[in-house]
Formats: sequence, C-alpha cells, structure tokens
Amino acid sequence: MKPTIGITMGDAAGVGPEIISKALSLKEIYEVCKPAVIGDSRVMEQAVKIAKVDLKVKPIRDLREAVFEYGTIDVIDLRNIELNKLVMGKVNAMAGKASVDYIKKAVALALSDAIKAIVTAPISKEAINKAGYHYSGHTELLADLTKTKDYTMMLIAGSLRVTHVTTHMSLKEACNKIRKERIYQVIKLTDKALREMEIEDPKIAVAGLNPHCGEGGLFGREEIEEIKPAVEMAIKEGINVVGPLPADTVFVRARGGAYDAVVAMYHDQGHIPIKMLGLEWNEKRREWTRVSGVNITIGLPIIRTSVDHGTAFGKAGKGKANPQSMIEAIKLAAKMAASRLQKAQE
Amino acid sequence: MKPTIGITMGDAAGVGPEIISKALSLKEIYEVCKPAVIGDSRVMEQAVKIAKVDLKVKPIRDLREAVFEYGTIDVIDLRNIELNKLVMGKVNAMAGKASVDYIKKAVALALSDAIKAIVTAPISKEAINKAGYHYSGHTELLADLTKTKDYTMMLIAGSLRVTHVTTHMSLKEACNKIRKERIYQVIKLTDKALREMEIEDPKIAVAGLNPHCGEGGLFGREEIEEIKPAVEMAIKEGINVVGPLPADTVFVRARGGAYDAVVAMYHDQGHIPIKMLGLEWNEKRREWTRVSGVNITIGLPIIRTSVDHGTAFGKAGKGKANPQSMIEAIKLAAKMAASRLQKAQE
Repeated sequence: MKPTIGITMGDAAGVGPEIISKALSLKEIYEVCKPAVIGDSRVMEQAVKIAKVDLKVKPIRDLREAVFEYGTIDVIDLRNIELNKLVMGKVNAMAGKASVDYIKKAVALALSDAIKAIVTAPISKEAINKAGYHYSGHTELLADLTKTKDYTMMLIAGSLRVTHVTTHMSLKEACNKIRKERIYQVIKLTDKALREMEIEDPKIAVAGLNPHCGEGGLFGREEIEEIKPAVEMAIKEGINVVGPLPADTVFVRARGGAYDAVVAMYHDQGHIPIKMLGLEWNEKRREWTRVSGVNITIGLPIIRTSVDHGTAFGKAGKGKANPQSMIEAIKLAAKMAASRLQKAQE
Repeated sequence: MKPTIGITMGDAAGVGPEIISKALSLKEIYEVCKPAVIGDSRVMEQAVKIAKVDLKVKPIRDLREAVFEYGTIDVIDLRNIELNKLVMGKVNAMAGKASVDYIKKAVALALSDAIKAIVTAPISKEAINKAGYHYSGHTELLADLTKTKDYTMMLIAGSLRVTHVTTHMSLKEACNKIRKERIYQVIKLTDKALREMEIEDPKIAVAGLNPHCGEGGLFGREEIEEIKPAVEMAIKEGINVVGPLPADTVFVRARGGAYDAVVAMYHDQGHIPIKMLGLEWNEKRREWTRVSGVNITIGLPIIRTSVDHGTAFGKAGKGKANPQSMIEAIKLAAKMAASRLQKAQE
C-alpha cells in the first residue's frame, strides 16, 4: 500500500513551490506514494508555470477530496497568501506566517495518522521571525509541536548518512555538550532510523571530537571520558557500533561502504562531508550544478524528511531551481512510511 | 633549469622507501627535477625489490657524485640502518632515529642551497619518540631545525588547497586560539605559497569557526571579533581574500574553482574535505583504493612537501603501497623550487 505523504509548501517567495512542482512532474513519485501539498493553491498554480511543467492544480479542503493521480497536484489549500503582496525572492512576513501554518497543519494530519510522513520545502528563518515565530528552523518547530525532547538531525547524501550530537550552537558550547548520555541517545536514534530505512543490521561509526581522536588524551579527553563510554553502552545493548574514529577519515570510510551512518559531534563535522558529496559548484556559471541530499529529523513520533538547502531567494521565480533534493526527500519519506506501515501490519 | 630535490627516506620499516622507488621509476619525475634520496642505500635496494621496479641504487656521499639519471636512484647514504635488525611494519627505535637523521641532513643541505626543496616520506611518531625525539611530527621538527615560528600546514587534494590556523591541539583549545593576528598571518602565508605555486592573483576564502558563521553572533562571536577583522587587515594589504564564509559549503565552492585556497580554523575542518577528495575506501577489498594529496609546510625558509599519509605499517614490505601522494609531492616541490629559482634569476 502506498503511503500518503504531506508536502509542506515552504516559503512562497522561495524555490519551494517550484521544486515541489518539478518533483511531482515525475511519474516515479506517484508509483511510491500518494502525495498532497499542504500550501496555497494559487501559489502552486504560479509555481507550475514557473517550473514549466504540464500539471493541473486541484485545491482541496480535505484529503478525502484528493485524487492522488499523476498529472494533478492535490493541494490542501490554506489560502493564506495574497499573490499581489508576494514578491519572489523577498523576505515577507505573510509568507513566513503561512509557511508555519503549513507545518502546523501537516503535523496535525500526521499525528492523526491521515498522512504517514511529512516532507518539508524550505522556510525562511527571517520571514518566520518577522511573523513572530522565534525558531531557528523546522527541526525545533517540529520538536515543539510534537513535544519531542530526544531528537537529532540526520543528513544523507549519496551513500553517506550522518547524525549530529550537537547542531546550532557555538563550537565552544558544542565542545561542552559532548556528554556520554547524549551521544548514547544519538547512537540509539541513529540505529532505529537506519532500520526504518530498511537497512538490515546497520553498522554505525562514531567520530571523535579532537584531531586524531585526541591522540590518547594528548589533545583533549572527550574521546576517553565521554565518547568511548557511550559507544560501550550502546554495544552492550546490541547495537553494531564502533568508535571513536578519527573524524578526517571516518566519513571517507562510510562513503566507501564501511558504515551505514556516522555519528558526528558537531554541526560542521557532519555537514562538511555531506556537502562535499551532495553539492557541486560551477565557478564559470557561478551556480550550484548539483544540489542533492536529504535532511531528516529523527526521534520525532512522525516521519519527517526535508530538502537539504534553503529558500534560495536569489533563484526564486526563475524556473531554474534544481528539484533533486526534493525528489530524494519524497522518495525517502515514502520508503520510511512504507516500512512503518508494513511493520504495523505484521 | 631543473631544481635538485632531496627526498628523505622516512621510516625504513614503513612504506616510504617503496613509494619513493615507485615514484622514481617514472620518467616524468626526472623531466621536472634532479631527485636524490637521503636515506640508507641498503634499505633502498630492498625497497626497489619490494616495489618490483627496474632501477639501480647508487650510494653516494655527496651530491657531486650524483648522476641524476633516470634508471638510477642516487642515495645520499647515511648507512644508519642494520637490515637484520629491521622488521617491516614494526616500530623500531633505530629506524626512528635514522628517519630524524635524514631530515636533519636534508635541512642542512637545503639551508646551504645544495638542494632546492625537501620532499619527506612518512616517519613514525612512535619510533622517533622511542629514539628520544619528542616531536608531534615532521612539521614541528622542521620548524625547530630552521628556527621558524610563523608557519602552517597546507594540504592539497585535487583542486582543493587548505591551510590551518590551528592543528594539533584539542578542539576546545583551538577555539581559544582563534585570534586575528594568527588568522592574518595564515592568510599572508597562504597568499605567498600560492604565488610560489605559480597561481596568478590567488583568491583566498576564510572559513568561519561556528555553524553558519555564528549566525550574526547568535552561535559564537569569533567571526565578528577575530576572523572578519583579520580578513579586513589582509584586504588592506592588497590580498584577494573573502570571509568568513560558512564552513560547510566553502570547501565545495573552492573545489569548484571559486577560490585557490581556503583558510581553515582547526585541524578537522581542513582535513575532512581534503580526505573526502584525496582518499577512496573500498569496503569489499578492505583497503584504500585512492591515496592522493600533498602536505606542505609553508612559512619555512625552505620548500618542503610531503605525502599526506603515514607509514602504513600494515602495508609495509608487501609491494602494494600506492605512490600517488609521493609523486604529487615531488612534482609540487619541483614546481615551487623552479618558481623560486626563476624569481631569483629575475
């Protein structure tokens, strides 16, 4: 059975609506799920034109009205954007508020089991702040709406999957937050998420914090006092995990197939290798020629995947946005939702 | 005029002698430089057999005896290894002491201008420690021997060049060492080194320390208080430099051609993207199938390049070591030395 997926439209002034339109112009998406956009139907109509795809937009109030057929984009229509007040590529409080409303609606639908997963298009932190919402991004908002405390960000690009012990804080603060309880928790969340991605007997590596894993205590003791004990706790619970391993080579090994995921200690430790794999910059054309990668919040009661890029305001409205990341995010959400459905039936 | 290059043999029990033999079996090396090994001739004779290359080894006492002809490896013979006491792949104090002696000899030759650059094969930190030398590696030893205070490590892999503001210290200590004076100095060293690599009008990017460059001070203030002022100081001196830029994408942009080098704030920030480009792990064969990349110490009075890997004791003596990094290190040393020679003649 194909799972129903809710795709939040994101910031109306960004590339979100366009990349959703492009992704939903692919038959293969409809073969793995029943997608519905949660957004504004007029913005989606405009986006279909910007994207130059031959699709109809069907505004609906309720999922029961959805047709889930290739060729038609079902849009749960919150009608919260006035097109004449929207300038593509510009921060806009109306679009910020609207983008939060899509997420709230999606979470409500997911918690009531009407949709089996949420895929989110990018929002603008500045726009939601202007609208009075003080979240640093989707992840914190989703955690708040679902009352989740233990969660983390997983990034996927190509064969590499990375989860994070710490994310949006200074590097100094991140160093102070390297604690065995949290590391242990992230290892467990990582193991569980990998199993939901239908990876059998997942193998996890944990990166060190310090250069050369601290060289036996010479350059920092976090490996000895926090990371190693956390790994040992997880091993005792039967999790297939090794570490700490030197951060400069562990991601290369994982990319080569040695591990199904790497637990990173801080934001850039995980983000640098992911972006090296998922992105490609072309200096002559002065643009990203490859924009791939998926961002997943793991630990939530609901399945949530996301594109691994921002609103790209500079590109919005031009029809040139790359939908690759959105396509991957929808497919992964579909796979994880199907896996949960199957388990529930067993 | 082809520059004379001294190649130190490194640890006799590691892969150094083997990868030197393989590199010197390439005619193209002799087309760009006059190479001489500084090591032990009997170890090199053994290495030629291990490497299965058809080369003669000519022990010499002095560079005036060197033939510098393809087919013959000239070895300034320190005769400091007793082959019957050497076990390949094992840490050995004799080999440790010998490897330091090669470096001392090479530095003396370079300072007296008899050789124009030094290329170093890997040494074992454990072995030199056993022999009573307490350096964390080549870089510190070379800085000490040449009485240099302002230096840094540059790594090169493919189109990416990275220099480091801090290296072998805990991440916490690295955070505390992010100071504008040092950052400014590293930008200047980077600019100078790039010019010696014959890169015209080099363009440099400086990475941030905190995620998203601290998001305007929200996650750390080093970008505002230290990094940005350092970049501005360098710009005032006419250096083409930008930053701080978010660390997770700046390396991707540099790989794509946007910058000739990136100044990284700490060891792993620079090493992770370099290893992602220079290394490839094959899980089926359980081995590195790509070992590329060069390590350069910049700021020394002498030119010094190195392989970007260790002694690989596990592989030593088996004839399967990959010489790619050594080949690149010799070629780069030759290019930099030729550039200095030309400038001296102008």
